[in-house]
Amino acid sequence: MSSRSFELLMSVDRNGHESLHAQVERQMRDAIRGGTLRPGSEVPSTRDLARRLGISRPLVMEAYAQLAAEGYLALRQGAAARVADTAPLQQVRDLPPESFSTEIFRYDFRPGIPDLSTFPSARWLKAVEAALKAMTPNDFGYRQRFGVWPLRQALAEYLGRVRGVSADPRQILITSGFEQARTLLARALSRRGVTQLAVEEPGYADRDVWIAAGFTLIPVAVDKAGIDVAALARSKAQAVLLSPAHQYPTGVVMSGPRRLALASWLQERNAVAVEDDYDAEFRYDRAPVGALQGLAPEHVIYAGTSSKTLAPALRLGWMVVPPELLLLLEDELRQIDYGRSRIDQFAMAHFITTGDFDRHLHKMRALYRDRREALLVALRAELPEVEVSGISAGLHAAVRFPRRLNEEAIIERAKKRDMGLGFLRRHYLGGAPEESTLLLSYANMPESALRSGVRTLATILD
Amino acid sequence: MSSRSFELLMSVDRNGHESLHAQVERQMRDAIRGGTLRPGSEVPSTRDLARRLGISRPLVMEAYAQLAAEGYLALRQGAAARVADTAPLQQVRDLPPESFSTEIFRYDFRPGIPDLSTFPSARWLKAVEAALKAMTPNDFGYRQRFGVWPLRQALAEYLGRVRGVSADPRQILITSGFEQARTLLARALSRRGVTQLAVEEPGYADRDVWIAAGFTLIPVAVDKAGIDVAALARSKAQAVLLSPAHQYPTGVVMSGPRRLALASWLQERNAVAVEDDYDAEFRYDRAPVGALQGLAPEHVIYAGTSSKTLAPALRLGWMVVPPELLLLLEDELRQIDYGRSRIDQFAMAHFITTGDFDRHLHKMRALYRDRREALLVALRAELPEVEVSGISAGLHAAVRFPRRLNEEAIIERAKKRDMGLGFLRRHYLGGAPEESTLLLSYANMPESALRSGVRTLATILD
Repeated sequence: MSSRSFELLMSVDRNGHESLHAQVERQMRDAIRGGTLRPGSEVPSTRDLARRLGISRPLVMEAYAQLAAEGYLALRQGAAARVADTAPLQQVRDLPPESFSTEIFRYDFRPGIPDLSTFPSARWLKAVEAALKAMTPNDFGYRQRFGVWPLRQALAEYLGRVRGVSADPRQILITSGFEQARTLLARALSRRGVTQLAVEEPGYADRDVWIAAGFTLIPVAVDKAGIDVAALARSKAQAVLLSPAHQYPTGVVMSGPRRLALASWLQERNAVAVEDDYDAEFRYDRAPVGALQGLAPEHVIYAGTSSKTLAPALRLGWMVVPPELLLLLEDELRQIDYGRSRIDQFAMAHFITTGDFDRHLHKMRALYRDRREALLVALRAELPEVEVSGISAGLHAAVRFPRRLNEEAIIERAKKRDMGLGFLRRHYLGGAPEESTLLLSYANMPESALRSGVRTLATILD
Repeated sequence: MSSRSFELLMSVDRNGHESLHAQVERQMRDAIRGGTLRPGSEVPSTRDLARRLGISRPLVMEAYAQLAAEGYLALRQGAAARVADTAPLQQVRDLPPESFSTEIFRYDFRPGIPDLSTFPSARWLKAVEAALKAMTPNDFGYRQRFGVWPLRQALAEYLGRVRGVSADPRQILITSGFEQARTLLARALSRRGVTQLAVEEPGYADRDVWIAAGFTLIPVAVDKAGIDVAALARSKAQAVLLSPAHQYPTGVVMSGPRRLALASWLQERNAVAVEDDYDAEFRYDRAPVGALQGLAPEHVIYAGTSSKTLAPALRLGWMVVPPELLLLLEDELRQIDYGRSRIDQFAMAHFITTGDFDRHLHKMRALYRDRREALLVALRAELPEVEVSGISAGLHAAVRFPRRLNEEAIIERAKKRDMGLGFLRRHYLGGAPEESTLLLSYANMPESALRSGVRTLATILD
């Protein structure tokens, strides 16, 4: 390619933000990458290109030296510079379609998502401001990878007061949420020799991760008092994963006697329970039932999250770990991550200690109580034949029909009406009951949408 | 225990923030947990306790019901209430010592830590504010777990412009930094059948994680032009982990011909390179050498981080992944995590697109250039016998002594003078050279401290 045609390929802008040699560099790099300048082909001399572009020769020499250092050009003393004779550099193509989009519905009854329109942005920003003020230079480094001390202290107080958790701040590890906690637990429990893991039946559906990590899952039935501890005791389980405060997805609150039986079993078998306390802050008929952890702190790993109380987008969770397992979990965390943003952690500590978190929860509890009521009223009016349960806590209801519905067809029909629905069936590892049960979240829709959503649902089911 | 002694144990504060029944509940729960109220022991009747405490009976009944639901009390119709007859609940004790503290030194020459006193707090707070304004309700949910779109777009532009990275935004995954990238890569490369992993010798010392994940590490020597590609080609390596822009820890910049040879090898063997581009933004003699990824985008996984450019505390990094490996990496990320804070990601996108990031880098480059100069001047004055290298880029220098020092003793003596030091030796998997090489970071100390630090160092070495 002659320096003449280089003029078509390249041009410099003296008023641009980019320096002149950077402009030359970038344009030539792009031309090589794009295939316009072919491997092995000669490029103009620095003198010639400088003249054509109307810039000084040292600028072009600088650009060529840079491109040579990066491997795009081959410069040899006394010979013409050439595009490096490497295999042609291909443009990236054949990308898979965007795989990170998630369906958004006007009527989204699918459980697991709190109200997303009430994030306390102004208060959170204040908390970030306070965090940045409070942090010393060393706090901006790599220290405190398991969690910053002020947040661990704030959580020990908060979890003790609101969730009945018994914790020394040193037992609290900060995570990016339950999914990271699960990754850590899978590694730590494996190392401890656990292979038989009991799970609630029905339960949280995202169970392939445990299977991929080599665990044998033992489904144990959940009845109206929580997980069947007698069945658990008959099994070979070495650990159990459960959600006692508001069982996912049935919404059952584990009874006092059942909790005691579980605590005894944990002690007798020297087993471990992983308590997924995902939405227990929301209880409507009375104060939330305290965490199982408080009954058996030596045997329960408590996992909490801000995903339901603040926002999933925050990605901030915590574990309370029995002292005996602490070093093991810390060692696993050390291997996979350097921990969560210290700024966010200091902000969360501020958010808790100022009472902003309590005030936010208070507000959300009232909001969700009204929405729950709106859903129940609408269900009574539009679908009188259903049996509603699991509503004393949490953010969704289980709605049982007296018969088996064509669930797939209903989900598809609902999608066409801009509605997201989920059935209980997919939460079973083994056989599900014949009757259909819909899981209806009331968290992320205003009351008017809940009412018209249930009316639309009735016509879909009709 | 009589209700009389209960008065000693419990009291209510009518002006407190806590409701009266919550006070009763909490105090009784603590007494049971602490062992003051023993398993099986009777507790006063609700009528009796209410009278003693001077509160209404329904309040005490509510507290008892709550404690029964949590498993602390056993209530039976017509019989006295008792503390549940479970095994004694132990207090948590024997906690290991705080394991998250890291040494802090007045003179900290250890590499890997940028200046921690210049985090751009005011601009970052503005970016968080802009993020919170820009985010729609759905952005506060679980979407975009691999990274929010505005940040991927901003990084594609930034990495293309500053690092010569060739990336479509869809190829960019957001991580919590290089450690999480490594966790993902270990899982993904294993699944792809990679068992033989070449690493730089000397190299980044944190290599047990790869070994724990089942890889065989093949040390390949680094010379003055970077990793020895001929030796790499003779090995059985299926993948290579390297830091071409500023080799860690020697500071060598990989030469153009060596880059081309590596790109050819990657193509011939259909191998994968993991490019750890940890501090390449800082180059002092000319513009930073572009990333290896730009030369072989189909074979290089590029890993970048904000740890050196902004702060380790931010925990925000990124990977650029070849299209062929994208689904594999996304699948691994899906299993271990729900992604980084969306708020932080939107903030970082804003920070980049407004030019705040460029301005911050510009400022830091000048600061580090001055510190580097101060270190070099001080070394020439105080330690004229040493050979300094690796200083054209990055945040530390390699300082070679003409003889073997008693390294352990020097580290210990330095500690007593409030100084942190690190030698090159521990970065070798195999045998290290006989001579001693100190790694001296100039990033996190003002010039005056660098000068007095080097003077102190000279007396320690003396």
